[in-house]
This record gives sequence, C-alpha cells and structure tokens, in this order.
Amino acid sequence: MISTDILIIGAGPTGLFTVFEAGLLKLKCHLIDALPQPGGQCTEIYPKKPIYDIPAYPEILAGDLTEKLLEQCKQFEPGFTLGERAETIEKQEDGTFIVTTNKGTKHQAPVVAIAGGLGSFEPRKPLIPNIANFEDKGVEYIIKDPEIYRDKKVVIAGGGDSALDWSIFLSDVASEVTLIHRRNEFRGHLDSVEKVQELKNLGKINLVTPAEVMGIIGNGHVEGVVVKQSGEELKEFNITCDHFVPLFGLSPKLGPIANWGLEIEKNAIKVNNALDYQTNIPGIFAIGDVNTYPGKLKLILCGFHEATLMCQAAYQIINPGKKYVLKYTTVSGVHGFDGTSKTAPKAVVKKID
Amino acid sequence: MISTDILIIGAGPTGLFTVFEAGLLKLKCHLIDALPQPGGQCTEIYPKKPIYDIPAYPEILAGDLTEKLLEQCKQFEPGFTLGERAETIEKQEDGTFIVTTNKGTKHQAPVVAIAGGLGSFEPRKPLIPNIANFEDKGVEYIIKDPEIYRDKKVVIAGGGDSALDWSIFLSDVASEVTLIHRRNEFRGHLDSVEKVQELKNLGKINLVTPAEVMGIIGNGHVEGVVVKQSGEELKEFNITCDHFVPLFGLSPKLGPIANWGLEIEKNAIKVNNALDYQTNIPGIFAIGDVNTYPGKLKLILCGFHEATLMCQAAYQIINPGKKYVLKYTTVSGVHGFDGTSKTAPKAVVKKID
Ligand SMILES: Cc1cc2nc3c(=O)[nH]c(=O)nc-3n(C[C@H](O)[C@H](O)[C@H](O)COP(=O)(O)OP(=O)(O)OC[C@H]3O[C@@H](n4cnc5c(N)ncnc54)[C@H](O)[C@@H]3O)c2cc1C
Ligand SMILES: Cc1cc2nc3c(=O)[nH]c(=O)nc-3n(C[C@H](O)[C@H](O)[C@H](O)COP(=O)(O)OP(=O)(O)OC[C@H]3O[C@@H](n4cnc5c(N)ncnc54)[C@H](O)[C@@H]3O)c2cc1C
Repeated sequence: MISTDILIIGAGPTGLFTVFEAGLLKLKCHLIDALPQPGGQCTEIYPKKPIYDIPAYPEILAGDLTEKLLEQCKQFEPGFTLGERAETIEKQEDGTFIVTTNKGTKHQAPVVAIAGGLGSFEPRKPLIPNIANFEDKGVEYIIKDPEIYRDKKVVIAGGGDSALDWSIFLSDVASEVTLIHRRNEFRGHLDSVEKVQELKNLGKINLVTPAEVMGIIGNGHVEGVVVKQSGEELKEFNITCDHFVPLFGLSPKLGPIANWGLEIEKNAIKVNNALDYQTNIPGIFAIGDVNTYPGKLKLILCGFHEATLMCQAAYQIINPGKKYVLKYTTVSGVHGFDGTSKTAPKAVVKKID
Repeated sequence: MISTDILIIGAGPTGLFTVFEAGLLKLKCHLIDALPQPGGQCTEIYPKKPIYDIPAYPEILAGDLTEKLLEQCKQFEPGFTLGERAETIEKQEDGTFIVTTNKGTKHQAPVVAIAGGLGSFEPRKPLIPNIANFEDKGVEYIIKDPEIYRDKKVVIAGGGDSALDWSIFLSDVASEVTLIHRRNEFRGHLDSVEKVQELKNLGKINLVTPAEVMGIIGNGHVEGVVVKQSGEELKEFNITCDHFVPLFGLSPKLGPIANWGLEIEKNAIKVNNALDYQTNIPGIFAIGDVNTYPGKLKLILCGFHEATLMCQAAYQIINPGKKYVLKYTTVSGVHGFDGTSKTAPKAVVKKID
C-alpha cells in the first residue's frame, strides 16, 4: 500500500503543479497516471507544439512546459504510479481513501485530488477479431518501455505522428521495423515524414502502404501478422514479427471516475469554485480540465490557480485547526523534501566609510 | 480623452497579463499606473529577487517576470498612462465609465478592471516643514525620468536600495551627487553597498552620515538643503543643489479607489469569485491582490487566472449576445494588433514513396 498526504489522479500540468504547491505546505504527493509518462495532454498529444498563453512565456513548447513543471516539483519528491488507471475509490472508517488501479496497486491518502483532464486516454483499437487475446502478449497500444523491442521484429500500424516517431526511434533499437498504413500519405510533422522517407531509402524501415493488418498469428504470443495490401493489385501476405503495435491515437474517457459517486455535468466533475474546488464528496477535489463550474475555462493557467487554492483546503483537512499563514516564496524560500533549499539573497546592513 | 475597451488600473503582473488575455479576444486595453514604470510590486519593491512559485519557472527574478509579461502582451499594443493616479470614476449615461487621474487625464471605457494590488504606492515623506512648497519644484519622491538630473546637483536622502541604486545611477548623469543617511549603515544588496563605497572613494558620490535634511532653501525652486550631521560633534551646514530626492520607500494605500462606492473588506475590494470577479458595480471588475473573496490568496498566479476569467465577462459586456468559443492558442495562434502573428507548425499530409 502506497501512503501519502495528497493522492493526485492525473500527472498532467495541473497534477504536477499541485505537487509543488503542496510541497510548499509540507504535504507529500503521489501521482497515478494511465499514461506511461507525466505531462498529460501536453506530452501525449502535442509535445512539439508551442503554447502562447502560459503567463510570462511568450512561447513555450508543450513538452518543455512539462519539463519545467517536473523540474519545479522535483524537490518535493513526488511518487508516481505510471501506466495504471485509477479504477476504484473506497472511503475508510478513519476518513482516508483507498484508490486501486486496474493493475491492483493500492494507494491511501486523506485527500484525493482528481486532476484527470479529459479523462484517461484509451487507445483506439483496430478491429482485428482475435486482438484481445494478444494484448500484453506482443500487442501494445502504447509504447511504455522501448527496451522491450530491442533486437526484436516490430510491426507498427498507423499514419500519424506517433506511428512515424516510434518507427524512427525503434529503427535503431529493433532488429526490424515495418510500418503499415492504410494510405500512402502520412499526416505528421514535416521532419518526421521526411525522416521516415530517409530511413525507408536506407532500408532501415520497411514501408507497406496502402495496407491493413487483418489478423494476428501466434500461439500465446504474437508470431506474425496477416496483411492485406491494396494498390495496383490486391495482395495478402504474412509478416513475421514479435510485436504488433497499432498506434491509432488515444481518445480520452472520463472512465471509471464517472462511477465514484461524484456529481457529473458535461462529462466533467462539478466543484465548488466559490471556495476550494471540492467535489460533493468531502476530501475529494477536482482541478484542471476535469472539473466544471460556471465560467470554467479548460486552460492550463486555470488549473494552476485551482491547484493552489485546493492545497490550502487539503492543508486544513490534514492539519485540522492549524492556522496556515501565507508566505511568499521570495521571502521564505523553498525548502525541498530532498534537502535542497532556495532562498533569495538577503539585504545586508553595512557601513560605508 | 483616451478611449479603450478595457481600462486597467494598475500595471502590475495582473494588469499586464490582462492585456494579453483581452488581446486574444480582440479587446484593446489601456493601463493607468501611479508608478513611472510597469510591473507593480515586482518592479518597485523586489526586481532583483527571485520568485519560486510562478508555474513552470523554477526560479525567475521579479524584474524578469515583468519583462516577460511585457514581451507577451506587446503585440496587443496596450496604451499607458504612467506616473498618474486614478482619482475619480463616473458612470456615463451610455453605460461607459470615465476615469480621471490626479493630473486630469481622462479615460473612457465600457469595462474597468481594477488591478491595483495593495493600492497606489505613496512615497513616505520626510518631516520637513516647507517641503510641500517644493514638490515638483526640485523635490521628487520618485525618480521618473533620470534625464532631468543631467548636469545638475542632486541630494538624495535614504538608506535602502532605492537611495543606493539611484545614487550609483545618477553619479554618471548629475554633475554632483550627495547621499545623506541618518545612520552610517546602509541596508541593501551587497553589490549596491559596495558600489557606493567604491564611488565614494573615487569622489563620485559625496556621503554625509549620520545626518538628516532639516530644511529646504530656495525661492520657488530648490536651491539647497540644510543638513544636520551628528557623529563626533554636531554640525549644521547647507548644501547647494538643484534637486532634493528623499527616497524613504513607498507605502501602498488603496487610496481614491476606496471612495468609488465599491464594497470594501479588509482594505480590498469584494468580488464575485464564483463567476467573473465582478464588483458590486456592474462593469467594474477587481483582479489580483486588490480583490478579496473566501479563500483568496494574494499570489501572482491567482491574478493570472482571475484576469483570464474576467476578460470573458468583459467580452460579453462589449459584444452583447455574441457567443465566444474558447480557442487554444496552440491551435488558433495569436494574432497581434501590431500585425504580427504566431502559429504552431501545422501537420503536413505527405506521401512517402
Ligand atoms: C492540441 C491541443 C492544444 C492545446 N493548446 C492549449 C493552449 O494553447 N493553452 C492552454 O492553456 N491549453 C491548451 N490545451 C489544453 C491543455 O492541454 C489542457 O488544459 C491541460 O492539459 C489540462 O491539464 P490537466 O493536468 O488538467 O489534464 P491533462 O493534461 O488532460 O492530464 C490528465 C491526466 O490524467 C490522466 N488520467 C485521467 N483519468 C485517469 C485515471 N482514472 N487513472 C489514471 N490516470 C488518469 C490522463 O492519462 C492524463 O495524463 C490544448 C490541448 C490540446 C489537445
Ligand atoms: C517582497 C515581496 C515578495 C513577494 N514574493 C512573491 C512570491 O514569491 N510569489 C507570489 O506569487 N507573490 C509574491 N509577492 C506578491 C506579488 O508581488 C503580488 O501578488 C503581485 O505583485 C500582485 O500583482 P497585482 O498586479 O495584482 O498588483 P501590484 O503588483 O501591487 O500592482 C498594482 C499596481 O497598481 C497601481 N495602482 C494602485 N492603485 C492605483 C491608482 N488609484 N491609480 C494608478 N495606479 C494604481 C500601483 O501603483 C501598482 O503598480 C511578493 C511581494 C513582495 C512585496
């Protein structure tokens, strides 16, 4: 059982900044995310695109924003349960909550902050009859650890940035990479498309288009895929491989959280924005894209504010009756749980003679 | 008469970010500030100190934060009335407001956003009987334009960073700089204290300590000051000068805004935080440090959020009935009023052969 002060569901920008604000109040955080890496939509959907409305950043790439937020909260040593979806929540007699993931990992905390954004991202799966039998047995919809493909034969399917970028990356790791797409045209960053073209010319990526994977061959584990290629004449053939990775995009679903007894409106969780972004269940807060209230804007900067006010309420729950006095970071510095400490240079009192 | 869409009182971080968010909605802004430069507390009180809780900035100097905010909003061409205090507000029959400064400058707008922070900074004045007669006639409490001191004799009084830093700066501009302080010890950045020591040794700054200015000599304009120096023996003498600049710090006062008929609580303006940070007078909003509501935190990041939500309400007032659909800057780009335009690189659709 993992125990913490604030259990954060969702490691997007809102969840990450919560770790920092909680840390200033000496509260520990642990984050659960269904994705294999932190950053939420910023990292998963548009890491290389610039955002222009982060205050005091005239321009910042979404991926760099995530890096900065990770750097800022690192000193407060957040825990992470990545690649697992928070599935159930139970309130204990002592008032704390236990949250269990789809893989059975249990987390306990007196405060739960749902920073789940648009929900947990579920992969869009291809319609291949027996695919479910091979999930985690050679079929992966999300690449969590590229090392499992080392010196293996991999078939990737898809025509967007994920398919392009992972083909490029794995061309150096796997013994063979085949990229299959149902059209000849790919839709992605110019760089990525050109790089795949180059690797194809070098023989480092096999390209099969326009084509589709129709079936999976194997006995307990993937051994190959059945491919149907159109074009001038219709062909059907098998490709031997150890892994089949369909990268058809992710679609967000509020998912299991929708069944936690929280008030839901327009696929989002209703909160009390007049005070502390608490939900109808005391001790459970919802911040960032996942919540709704009159005038709500699904913007990153709003999640930052909501996280900050929420942490004050969490402090009261965790330290009942204790009065908290706001201190400026400039004046009091930041004292990390990892022993680091940042403080502004103090004014000196010095004689001039 | 200056006309605009949103008239912002206060050019601190909150006011500056309002310009950006309003610009995204194609609304023009004009800012009034009692200080000679934008940036509010950040620039006036602690420009060289680091802030640690600006989201995605593990550390940023308050002065650099101001620079970044100015850079971000520049494309929306804000107007500025600096060095003037907003004094009165009148509602017109057409529903717009007219705000007049202490210097008589008039501004008209359908929406007024008060981002006045802790209030307008009023200089602490020394207790010299006839000083009021010389204000703006050789006595300045705030240095707005250092050029007026070129080749003049200047006496500065004070023992903090302002007095130290302006003495250093003016030692290159004025023909003579005298720094008077009632103690031998100065309180400021180590760099500044050491630099003054160095300039004193070079004869570029005259230092008179421990001493106080007791009177001002002049006929219509400052011609000199009467100084009393303690130390080993008590001395009283005159120093000939063209300017006397007492820099004893600024203290914020909500000031004239307190008389505008707004609901005030704890020296701050009550707003409806459950919606759009509007005050009890429709069309007048209060954002940033100047407002109060349950759970309010006087933090920079909260001002950013409040400004953003407020701009949506301003849009409705200025474009009644028009529906606004939130667009991500990443997706729609930012189109400045100055003709500039920023957009993320679009995905290409490209064949690989
Ligand atoms: C193309 C694009 C451009 C954008 N441009 C801008 C812009 O310019 N400016 C701006 O402010 N915003 C922009 N946004 C929106 C911005 O990305 C979101 O507002 C922001 O990501 C919300 O942050 P969050 O932390 O609340 O949620 P998210 O970033 O959505 O993160 C939520 C995380 O929670 C996880 N999660 C959810 N449910 C569970 C569960 N049950 N178990 C485990 N994990 C779970 C998800 O996997 C996800 O990682 C853009 C979005 C997109 C898609
Ligand atoms: C030493 C110090 C350290 C700090 N550290 C931090 C920190 O680490 N993190 C953090 O988030 N915050 C910190 N703060 C607080 C932060 O500076 C404020 O929250 C922030 O400046 C508020 O911004 P604002 O734009 O709302 O108001 P201000 O910055 O106060 O700006 C208001 C402006 O309005 C002007 N004004 C007011 N009334 C009038 C009028 N009638 N006419 C014309 N102009 C008027 C004033 O002159 C001023 O320039 C610190 C403050 C100080 C003093």
